[in-house]
Amino acid sequence: MPQLRIALAQVNPTVGDLDGNADLVVDWTRRARAAGAGLVVFPEMMITGYPVEDLALRASFVDASIATVHRTARRLAAEGLGGVAVITGYLGRRADLPPRLGRPAGAPLDAAALLYDGAIAAATAKHHLPNYGVFDEYRYFVPGDHLPVFRMPARGGPVDVAIAVCEDLWQDGGPVAVTRVAGAGLLAVPNASPYERGKEYVRLELCARRAREAGAALAYVNMLGGQDELVFDGGSLVVDAEGRELAHAPRFCDALLVTDLDLPAADPAKHPGETPADAGDGTVITIRRIELPPVNAEDPERLRPGQVGGAATSWAAKCQDGPPGGLAEVYAALVLGTADYVRKNGFGSVILALSGGIDSALTATIAADAIGPDRVHVALMPSKYSSEHSVTDAEDLVKRQGLHARTVPINAVVDAFDAGLPGLTGLAAENLQARIRGMVLMTLSNAEGHLVLTTGNKSEIATGYSTLYGDSAGGFAPIKDVFKSLVWELAKWRNAQAVLDGRTPPIPENSITKPPSAELAPGQLDTDSLPAYEVLDALLDDYVENDMGAAQLVAAGHDPALVQRVIRLVDAAEYKRRQYPPGPKITPKNFGRDRRLPITSRWREQFGLARGCSS
Amino acid sequence: MPQLRIALAQVNPTVGDLDGNADLVVDWTRRARAAGAGLVVFPEMMITGYPVEDLALRASFVDASIATVHRTARRLAAEGLGGVAVITGYLGRRADLPPRLGRPAGAPLDAAALLYDGAIAAATAKHHLPNYGVFDEYRYFVPGDHLPVFRMPARGGPVDVAIAVCEDLWQDGGPVAVTRVAGAGLLAVPNASPYERGKEYVRLELCARRAREAGAALAYVNMLGGQDELVFDGGSLVVDAEGRELAHAPRFCDALLVTDLDLPAADPAKHPGETPADAGDGTVITIRRIELPPVNAEDPERLRPGQVGGAATSWAAKCQDGPPGGLAEVYAALVLGTADYVRKNGFGSVILALSGGIDSALTATIAADAIGPDRVHVALMPSKYSSEHSVTDAEDLVKRQGLHARTVPINAVVDAFDAGLPGLTGLAAENLQARIRGMVLMTLSNAEGHLVLTTGNKSEIATGYSTLYGDSAGGFAPIKDVFKSLVWELAKWRNAQAVLDGRTPPIPENSITKPPSAELAPGQLDTDSLPAYEVLDALLDDYVENDMGAAQLVAAGHDPALVQRVIRLVDAAEYKRRQYPPGPKITPKNFGRDRRLPITSRWREQFGLARGCSS
Repeated sequence: MPQLRIALAQVNPTVGDLDGNADLVVDWTRRARAAGAGLVVFPEMMITGYPVEDLALRASFVDASIATVHRTARRLAAEGLGGVAVITGYLGRRADLPPRLGRPAGAPLDAAALLYDGAIAAATAKHHLPNYGVFDEYRYFVPGDHLPVFRMPARGGPVDVAIAVCEDLWQDGGPVAVTRVAGAGLLAVPNASPYERGKEYVRLELCARRAREAGAALAYVNMLGGQDELVFDGGSLVVDAEGRELAHAPRFCDALLVTDLDLPAADPAKHPGETPADAGDGTVITIRRIELPPVNAEDPERLRPGQVGGAATSWAAKCQDGPPGGLAEVYAALVLGTADYVRKNGFGSVILALSGGIDSALTATIAADAIGPDRVHVALMPSKYSSEHSVTDAEDLVKRQGLHARTVPINAVVDAFDAGLPGLTGLAAENLQARIRGMVLMTLSNAEGHLVLTTGNKSEIATGYSTLYGDSAGGFAPIKDVFKSLVWELAKWRNAQAVLDGRTPPIPENSITKPPSAELAPGQLDTDSLPAYEVLDALLDDYVENDMGAAQLVAAGHDPALVQRVIRLVDAAEYKRRQYPPGPKITPKNFGRDRRLPITSRWREQFGLARGCSS
Repeated sequence: MPQLRIALAQVNPTVGDLDGNADLVVDWTRRARAAGAGLVVFPEMMITGYPVEDLALRASFVDASIATVHRTARRLAAEGLGGVAVITGYLGRRADLPPRLGRPAGAPLDAAALLYDGAIAAATAKHHLPNYGVFDEYRYFVPGDHLPVFRMPARGGPVDVAIAVCEDLWQDGGPVAVTRVAGAGLLAVPNASPYERGKEYVRLELCARRAREAGAALAYVNMLGGQDELVFDGGSLVVDAEGRELAHAPRFCDALLVTDLDLPAADPAKHPGETPADAGDGTVITIRRIELPPVNAEDPERLRPGQVGGAATSWAAKCQDGPPGGLAEVYAALVLGTADYVRKNGFGSVILALSGGIDSALTATIAADAIGPDRVHVALMPSKYSSEHSVTDAEDLVKRQGLHARTVPINAVVDAFDAGLPGLTGLAAENLQARIRGMVLMTLSNAEGHLVLTTGNKSEIATGYSTLYGDSAGGFAPIKDVFKSLVWELAKWRNAQAVLDGRTPPIPENSITKPPSAELAPGQLDTDSLPAYEVLDALLDDYVENDMGAAQLVAAGHDPALVQRVIRLVDAAEYKRRQYPPGPKITPKNFGRDRRLPITSRWREQFGLARGCSS
């Protein structure tokens, strides 16, 4: 049985940075070659990054993507890598489809190319276009309609490899079904599959099932990195034709997963050419077979086994992996999402408000883990309602982590404001304090160049318990998708990890144990306005994530009066949520790309519900 | 030839207000009956409003929509209107499709029902789902696959009427093609087609062409009203089977368009039942024929002609119509969009900052025209950089229009802030002033319940010439989609209209003629940072609306250095645009639902570019 050494390059492209992304392809192909791989697979839309959104509809951007792919093929050959078969995702187009209403402008393709010997040897495109959750691909792409199968040399004789893209695994029929018809030995699948808590299990089960359906080994390479509010977690893997896992890459870090695969010998009776096949989904997919020519420059020695120890090896950069679905995984997603948002937007530092509460404490800790404590600036902004512990707990955290701290009391500004608009009480007075703090952060951002991080959690954002242009002001919201009960769990977990590592726990114990308060009025506690968070979060989860209606929520055991109240709060807060900065997505419905509701409601409280930040 | 009197009910539903929308159906059916109509047609998604966005995926909401349709049919019968054939859009579902990845949860339908004799006599759903521009319908709906054709009495014998929904007119094949196969005499089409400047011409041409293709008269009823950032402009119309316009409704107002139609007699050889037909778009559509039973309660006299004077009559509420594409039309769209956003969100009044500049002057005028000057509050917030005319021009406008005005100087707050963060200069100092003003407005909103209107124009928003949480703070942005050159045109047009009506021009001449300035630094002018607006707007139009790349822009005659600069400004301002409040859409790409780009860029100026408002 022939043996092929493959490498899955789980790397981190940046949307729009075509040259930087092409550099990654060349660099990691070099590493794969050094590891003796004959085939290297990069993620979906590697050349452009994903998601490109409406950039797909801009002809100049598609032109640039295609030109970059050609240039990359030539660069690979010029660097002596022309004999490595390289599969990479890119933004392509169909040239044969005229403009038509409802067809995305320019007929873009979510494409994948096979680069070999300095040129594009084959290209294909995603057949099944996802248009749910965070995906809007009917808006951007036309579907692919063929399956490339290329014959390439391996130790012990040639093998046949097919290429499909991401969603083609998730839907029934299509390229997977046709791979079986074509009799390919390996199906290579570039992906850009965003993280959700626990999704790792689903992916493995899916790959195993599709490998059995295709009757082929399956190489699944996922993108890495944060892009706006999406986090790609990697976790690339290889299964054999029976669906058994052969190797998997770590998650939340760059990795090159190198695996030796035993593959069936290519059938010599099958020749290059085109054959239509029933795709089992109501469409016909054309199988396009090619045979890769031998490349003189290549050293056959590169195919020798054992150059890398063991069947699977990975180069891991800064992995933080733990049991799937666990707190380590969630924390790693928040750190990666934050780190990449800061870096990809070109910021060198961040600034946030530190209140002594748990939300800002966790946010600061995530930021310090993401970009280093020396790039994290915090502002303590006490008012006359601030408790003594709000300052001491914040100072304790600063000392534990070595952050840059400054104190900017806001009382004088509050007083000047009161003088101009006398008699402010209640919500207007509370929100004013939160807005002055937001203004301090934005002013320091403008003056010193920091990215402002907001510290609101998902429970607050769901119920509108925040102040527009106050605690919600900023560029990124690291814990936007984290319910308050999970905030506490993550804080405790992070401290416990530090203890295990023999380090100082980064978060003061008092920030974890004290009752949460916005401290915008004397003696105020979150529980004055909201139910206990464990009760609230369970209800929010059923309403927001599971889309239950009022009757269903009551039937599920939630208190009927609370159901009415929380539905009203959540629906009325839609406008505020739209104005909230993005944050790393860790659940199916993160109040970002995932959940889109009309603003208009019959409740005028949508602004009036504003409360200050509790962190 | 039989004659049928039909009524198109161009009315204004509110998303989510099922009971209120059902009331409109009953109320306007009563009016149609009084006008002698045998058939009345309401807009697409009449029962729920449009667009419902992710509410479509909530089972309890779909249940409520369907229950409301049944209840409405019974109410109509109970009120003696059971003999009027009523076609209304609603949110329905297919019960026979099991859950599947990629299928919208619950298989919702963009449906239309025929209500008759107290029940749903027939139902259908949109076959072609738009998924471009402001539409995301692959996310929300499954396509319809049949065409109902109902036989109903008319003067001179029965006629056959088919029903299609909105996008089914815009795409080739489908229900229009099958209407010809079915031999229906009339095609009734409920629509929710958002306004764009000049779209009126396109719609008329489309209806004429599709009527000829269907070989049937065509009754096109469009929704009215603002919904979040969409504006539905009405303009319902009727064409005969040769495509000749028989009647059209006014735009930007409620209307009942009543028309007597000469229709071919129904073919007695065609009987109730189902017949599959080739839809000419790769699908098969089933024709479902029914015959409406006679309703005893009905008075045949209602069918007598001449009850309404002339062939076409409309009840118009507060129409502001002018030549299609002209300034009157744009102004009407801005007024309607603003009025409905205020009303549908339950606000009784608005507040905005008045600077003496043209943007805030036009915004205040739109607001006063939308909800009345007695509900418009303005704040004059001079700083040490404000010119004398900024105050006098603002006071002049207040006096001309009779608005509620107050003056809130911001110098004391600026000074208190400077004391806490000494040494602020440049952008940080400029933005601070804009943010204090935004905070004053939000505080007054919280204290007094006004909706805050922002006054930024499209040229500013495109280039990022605004301050996050400063002049961009608020709930609605009436001129968000209006380029600065069009701001001036509209202001001059509005003043000229007042002169024609023998009234005082609402906008001070000096606000129109003086050079625009943000007045955030001594002697500052917009032209210090931006090119002349006529040059900038032409370039923005090609870059934003026409999606030209840099090379194309230069080839189109734009200055190469300016092209580079403006592209950089526009791309870097994406984050700010996402945070901007919604505003009435009048162009294809309004920086709202229409244009979706990644936040991540390689430019860190995304916050630093912030400038104050020029209005």
